[in-house]
Amino acid sequence: MRRGALVLKTKRKRSIAAAPTRAQAKPTTRHIYIFGNGKADGRADMKYELGGKGANLAEMTHLGIPVPPGLTITTAVCRTFNELGQRWPDGLETELQHKVKWLEGIAKKRFGDPNNPLLVSVRSGAAFSMPGMMDTILNLGLNPDTVRGLITKTDNPRFAYDAYRRFIQMFGNVVLGVDHKHFEEILGKKKRQFKVTIDAELPADALQQLVTEYKQFVHQQTEQPFPDDPRLQLRLAITAVFKSWNNERATVYRRLNNIPHTLGTAVTVQSMVFGNMGNTSLTGVCFTRDPSTGDNVFYGEYLVNAQGEDVVAGIRTPKPIAELQVEFPKIYAQLFKIGKQLEKYFTDVQDLEFTVEESTLYMLQARNGKRTAPAAVRIVTDFVKDRVLTKNTALLKIDPAQIDQLLHPTIDPTAKPTVIAKGLPASPGAAVGRVVFHAHKAVALSEEESQRVILVREETSPEDIEGMAAAQGILTARGGMTSHAAVVGRGMGKCCVVGCNEIVVREEEGLVKVGDLVIKEGDVITLNGSTGEVMLGEVPLVEPQLTGSFKQLLSWADQTRRLKVRANADTPHDARVARQFGAEGIGLCRTEHMFFGDERLPVVREMILAQDSGARRAALAKLLPFQKADFIGIFQEMQGLPVTIRLLDPPLHEFLPNTPDDQERVAHQLGIDLRKLRDTVQSLHEVNPMLGHRGCRLGITYPEINEMQAQAIFEAAGELIRDGVRVVPEVMIPLVGHPNEFRVAKQTVDQVAQQVMTRSKVKLTYLVGTMIEVPRAAVVAAAIANDAEFFSFGTNDLTQMTFGFSRDDVGKFLPYYLKQQILPADPFVKLDQEGVGQLVKLGIQQGRSVRRALKVGICGEHGGEPSSVEFCHRVGMDYVSCSPYRVPIARLAAAQAVLRQTRQP
Amino acid sequence: MRRGALVLKTKRKRSIAAAPTRAQAKPTTRHIYIFGNGKADGRADMKYELGGKGANLAEMTHLGIPVPPGLTITTAVCRTFNELGQRWPDGLETELQHKVKWLEGIAKKRFGDPNNPLLVSVRSGAAFSMPGMMDTILNLGLNPDTVRGLITKTDNPRFAYDAYRRFIQMFGNVVLGVDHKHFEEILGKKKRQFKVTIDAELPADALQQLVTEYKQFVHQQTEQPFPDDPRLQLRLAITAVFKSWNNERATVYRRLNNIPHTLGTAVTVQSMVFGNMGNTSLTGVCFTRDPSTGDNVFYGEYLVNAQGEDVVAGIRTPKPIAELQVEFPKIYAQLFKIGKQLEKYFTDVQDLEFTVEESTLYMLQARNGKRTAPAAVRIVTDFVKDRVLTKNTALLKIDPAQIDQLLHPTIDPTAKPTVIAKGLPASPGAAVGRVVFHAHKAVALSEEESQRVILVREETSPEDIEGMAAAQGILTARGGMTSHAAVVGRGMGKCCVVGCNEIVVREEEGLVKVGDLVIKEGDVITLNGSTGEVMLGEVPLVEPQLTGSFKQLLSWADQTRRLKVRANADTPHDARVARQFGAEGIGLCRTEHMFFGDERLPVVREMILAQDSGARRAALAKLLPFQKADFIGIFQEMQGLPVTIRLLDPPLHEFLPNTPDDQERVAHQLGIDLRKLRDTVQSLHEVNPMLGHRGCRLGITYPEINEMQAQAIFEAAGELIRDGVRVVPEVMIPLVGHPNEFRVAKQTVDQVAQQVMTRSKVKLTYLVGTMIEVPRAAVVAAAIANDAEFFSFGTNDLTQMTFGFSRDDVGKFLPYYLKQQILPADPFVKLDQEGVGQLVKLGIQQGRSVRRALKVGICGEHGGEPSSVEFCHRVGMDYVSCSPYRVPIARLAAAQAVLRQTRQP
Repeated sequence: MRRGALVLKTKRKRSIAAAPTRAQAKPTTRHIYIFGNGKADGRADMKYELGGKGANLAEMTHLGIPVPPGLTITTAVCRTFNELGQRWPDGLETELQHKVKWLEGIAKKRFGDPNNPLLVSVRSGAAFSMPGMMDTILNLGLNPDTVRGLITKTDNPRFAYDAYRRFIQMFGNVVLGVDHKHFEEILGKKKRQFKVTIDAELPADALQQLVTEYKQFVHQQTEQPFPDDPRLQLRLAITAVFKSWNNERATVYRRLNNIPHTLGTAVTVQSMVFGNMGNTSLTGVCFTRDPSTGDNVFYGEYLVNAQGEDVVAGIRTPKPIAELQVEFPKIYAQLFKIGKQLEKYFTDVQDLEFTVEESTLYMLQARNGKRTAPAAVRIVTDFVKDRVLTKNTALLKIDPAQIDQLLHPTIDPTAKPTVIAKGLPASPGAAVGRVVFHAHKAVALSEEESQRVILVREETSPEDIEGMAAAQGILTARGGMTSHAAVVGRGMGKCCVVGCNEIVVREEEGLVKVGDLVIKEGDVITLNGSTGEVMLGEVPLVEPQLTGSFKQLLSWADQTRRLKVRANADTPHDARVARQFGAEGIGLCRTEHMFFGDERLPVVREMILAQDSGARRAALAKLLPFQKADFIGIFQEMQGLPVTIRLLDPPLHEFLPNTPDDQERVAHQLGIDLRKLRDTVQSLHEVNPMLGHRGCRLGITYPEINEMQAQAIFEAAGELIRDGVRVVPEVMIPLVGHPNEFRVAKQTVDQVAQQVMTRSKVKLTYLVGTMIEVPRAAVVAAAIANDAEFFSFGTNDLTQMTFGFSRDDVGKFLPYYLKQQILPADPFVKLDQEGVGQLVKLGIQQGRSVRRALKVGICGEHGGEPSSVEFCHRVGMDYVSCSPYRVPIARLAAAQAVLRQTRQP
Repeated sequence: MRRGALVLKTKRKRSIAAAPTRAQAKPTTRHIYIFGNGKADGRADMKYELGGKGANLAEMTHLGIPVPPGLTITTAVCRTFNELGQRWPDGLETELQHKVKWLEGIAKKRFGDPNNPLLVSVRSGAAFSMPGMMDTILNLGLNPDTVRGLITKTDNPRFAYDAYRRFIQMFGNVVLGVDHKHFEEILGKKKRQFKVTIDAELPADALQQLVTEYKQFVHQQTEQPFPDDPRLQLRLAITAVFKSWNNERATVYRRLNNIPHTLGTAVTVQSMVFGNMGNTSLTGVCFTRDPSTGDNVFYGEYLVNAQGEDVVAGIRTPKPIAELQVEFPKIYAQLFKIGKQLEKYFTDVQDLEFTVEESTLYMLQARNGKRTAPAAVRIVTDFVKDRVLTKNTALLKIDPAQIDQLLHPTIDPTAKPTVIAKGLPASPGAAVGRVVFHAHKAVALSEEESQRVILVREETSPEDIEGMAAAQGILTARGGMTSHAAVVGRGMGKCCVVGCNEIVVREEEGLVKVGDLVIKEGDVITLNGSTGEVMLGEVPLVEPQLTGSFKQLLSWADQTRRLKVRANADTPHDARVARQFGAEGIGLCRTEHMFFGDERLPVVREMILAQDSGARRAALAKLLPFQKADFIGIFQEMQGLPVTIRLLDPPLHEFLPNTPDDQERVAHQLGIDLRKLRDTVQSLHEVNPMLGHRGCRLGITYPEINEMQAQAIFEAAGELIRDGVRVVPEVMIPLVGHPNEFRVAKQTVDQVAQQVMTRSKVKLTYLVGTMIEVPRAAVVAAAIANDAEFFSFGTNDLTQMTFGFSRDDVGKFLPYYLKQQILPADPFVKLDQEGVGQLVKLGIQQGRSVRRALKVGICGEHGGEPSSVEFCHRVGMDYVSCSPYRVPIARLAAAQAVLRQTRQP
């Protein structure tokens, strides 16, 4: 059965939809599945019916693995229970009686039998693991009669009374609703009375007294005697577990983890076994491989003569699992064999819970083990080597999002940092450095004094680029997941936390406030860009390492995927990094980033302040050599791979100084009248710059800008072609909404190309295409494709305009929307497939309806997000483009998209 | 043939497309159409082939109306001429020779015949009238021989030489490119030589000398002798007319009037007749009805023994046409009969040019007469009375846009104002008043001192509403056709000019600068909101009057249209005005306008500054009575007609003071800390407010706002229902993009409705629907319609987001786009049918796919624009909603939409 998680996932819909109907329509359907003695009704792929735990126990039983016998009440019963207003469905009672009888037969014990009592655990179990969210009751079946039977059987009154008092405590709390703290108070009093400090020191008679006192207290609180009838205990416990599905912490957990509230929980009733029945009994937990490194060794610990919770309680130090091999070689061998059997069966590392009761091994639980990203990669590649997995299945086993961990420094997991605030995790990794508030300070400190710095700002602007590059990490108080800081941070692969509302940045005073805490310039902080956490002081980091397994896995992904993966890269340096991560081209080279920098910005400002097209041309002529050199560097790095260059996009006011001080400085620097500068800033001011004079609107109204950029591109290409380098520039016109805009802009580009070719006598091959980022462009895509040779979906802006969400302002309501589940996800992180995605689909269909071979890609931030990459594959794009550091993620996600599509019916 | 303009219009496409193909593919096709002697090749509906003039002359000839014979060279020839690089197409020359021979036969005169010379006029004539834009040559055929023949025939050497020198002047200028001024100089010299002051006083010999001198001068200038061969003259003149199609003033005129450059001009060559052959000759122009009032009387003037240009030259005062009846009763009777015949035939008032040559009447031109809006309405209703037109055809004769003239004061057409600047014509009508810069000043001056004021501002904001209401007109330096000032101005039916870039408003200095001109507060200016002109001083105005014919016409429109017409109205006053203009409901009641006003704004601010939902609720409770009273007033006015109320839409920062001074004042007024107020202003600041925390996002994150508004609506409705008034409120949730947003907001509204019903024991009927204004809403409209009971397309915002155009910033590039024809029209004025319109269509289809009877309307500014109204009809909307003053326009446009749809194949 080599199906694993994938098959279960694809079954989800059917199961959810079918189950309630089945429950209502056929009341005689099976409510309870049994397992034990090598026989089970359920199977591993019935997670949605039996919960993960129940399904696995059934499967293990089938496999002949020793599992204490038991029964599982299905999730369908839970759903029906809720639909009926918390009543048991008809027939459940009778079926339970019947199956309990079967259990008693298998276990050779009976409920309430004073000589050989059946004791059971009652646990919840949903299709998805929700650790600690719902309730569990152990030792159910104890009462004044059976506790005596247990003493007789174990010859251990202390153990028996301890089990009894624990049962009352759990049952009282979970089933009868008595607050836990009351039991703690009584227990505390008892310890004082017996002058002991820890629970384990209480003697048997103290525990016996506790049983009595607990029962009295429960009677008093609930005005009912504590139920002694094991069958009644069982009924009440099952009901309580059903109810716990909707308790507050479970509901919150599901919301946070996107688990549907409609699934319901199964209830597994399992015969208890005891690891504390003497020195041939023990209990333990282990992973079949090291969950940190993926090393192929058993990893875990055990305690002789103990119950599971003793391991957790930490009273005695458990022994490492390796010692089990020495101490109980037979048990270890059996456990090892079972572990490997399960590993092979579930094709994943196993997280096992086991108990040895008087030399007999019982497996209490087996599930796929949680592991670090490096371990996950190591394990699946090892599995492929061992022919446990095929390459394809291995590819599907890795969560692409986890790959980020492999590429960036991370917080040392053993550190205990002081988290002082939390923002949005805009760009992964971790960073330590001194707080600085100005880009130039960041450059100065890092370059001149080799200091590590964190750039902290209200929000960043293109002027800050060099400071951002110099900093270890970036922290902003404002902005969302596609704000300037976030996009640039990801592009640089630099740790970045944005939209950290809790901090107040007072740049002019040189400090940040977090509540009453004041952090001054120069103080050290640590950022975790993967969680959004801001920490005080220097927290130790772990450096990433790109292992051979990782490269192996990605090479398999490359063999499988259809989508090409390009990177968004604006400089030769970015281009080099992109190539190292496996990018097959540049999908977005933003030319505006080339307009910043100490030598360039003054010239750009001169251009903007020019009074006529002549003066503008003169300033542009000075920019030309810079742009050309940039393109030469990028083309050289890319060695003939496609490079998509976007013509100038941002509104011109982004290049002008905004504060009075800066304006004064710049006016002086450029030797112009301050008032004139302020007038220009004022006249370029826009109410909604996002929807203003930018994109192709700029290059159309000031054609000399497009001319200069085209000239830089084509002259750069021409020179390299003469030197024998292959170069095919793809010139991209941004923000087109009407076919005429594209036509006019393309005309300029074509004219310049012609001129350069004539002048240089070099034949240039190039494409002119457009970004589809304005909703209108998607609607009229057919008309645009008449002239455009490629489409690149700019899903950042397309998302902004399709939703009417400004990415800079969305922080005011989006968090609320996500919390209230009004939106399922941040549309700037995951592509909104049902809204924005429909426009993308429409645009592709329309575009290809007039130009069958139209090259189509995406260059929004979604190009590196796994679910969005899968969408891009499904709608037939040719490539995705993302920040260099997300290229590996996209490569894997693109391969998974192929595999999922092939496997789906 | 009752077809008129409509048929011609619908034929346009075919004609334009077919003609050039025909010319190229079949070189033997007819280039020249003849007319004369009761026979003609052409017809009235061949305007696109023969030009308006040629087509009408042909038709008149068919009708037996006396027209001097002639021929018309088609527009197709002009197009081919240009395609061939200004060469005559093959065969044209031969055909021309052939048809000139025919003309000579009909006219019984011959080119160059010294005894009986044929003289012709050569005129341009396009499908659309372009008065004075292209060139005309009269008296062609004169040379030293024929001028003598003319003298013999007329026995009038003065006339003959005058005709000759005029011909040389026109021909020299138009065909040979000699500057007009040189001829004027020679003429001036001659007058000084003969000591006369006006041309007409020059004796025959002086004119004869002029002919010689003119010819010498032309020879000298062009280095060619002046051509004497009439056939060569004709060929050169035809070529010159073709070329004049592309002269600068014609090109500009076409651009300004949206006439395609591809049409080309026809050339009509017509035998000359002379009104100056003695006292039985005369010339005149007349309208068949009074073009100012529509009165059914001939209106025009004539001059005995004169040529057409003498009437224009103003040397002799022409006599009113009424005298013709006395002086030449037979001619008058014939003219009257012809006029009525043509009027009936073309079903429109006729603008006639005629000449009587020795007692014989010739009609030189007949075309539909330009007339004022009141005249147009009067004329078509009279035509219906006289059974010349059906009601339906009458409805199609009126341009809905012209109706504005009937509803607003206009500039007195006899005035000669000094125009100092021009902005966008945002709201029609004219206004005179003193300049004020502050809303409160406007209120003070107009209320306390009964002064008429014009509010002049950089741009307006909701705070200015009362000042805008108090002013006669509004002028802003910024903003586009859907800026705040424009929308509010139209809503109030108030003259408004926006985006007047030429003016610099210095509010703090109390002055406006236009170039070097300074206008101070208190100076009087006049605005023309229909043209965008700003004029110095007080210009006399003409008050509008709603005539019976107008009401008649609109009642026919009401019988015909399918679309309901509602108004956008925010106050009981607006509602009353809307009803008077025939609105059948309110399609958009913006509740935010109720949040302004001296008593309310402080409470609104209190609400915004509230620190928690409790304090917010307390402030809202104070607003409740105001809102409720507003709704009661509106519901009462509307008497059971539907009222769509939009819940609060604008971002909260719009309600807060922005300047430091205002902030100080408000902080003091509200008794709060200035710093706290500034912090709030700062924290509510948005980078792109258009895409920010507004619309339903507001009412979802602060549900107490929606609750208060719903309570006000339902309590108001409840009270009126108890009093026997029918009220069916339609509650509209703005800016919905995801079905969940609608669901959450609707839940609040429904809950409040339930509470009010329970409390008041009144049963309320209401609808909850949404505005479709975010592109995503159109894409997922089916899911929204699951819950929404109506859709209202907010095409202002939908246009902003679909194009990515901020209406406040579009002035930076839209004018350039329109000038360069990158966009065919301002999409904020005319609905962009191929882009935004497709989303509208999609939204309707999707919505009705799940809710068949979904009520659908439009409430953007497009709801009052004729072509957009037609679109709304075609896509199956139920209603349009527009400013009250545009309701009559929408009523007529909606009727025309029905008629056009029925008539189209």
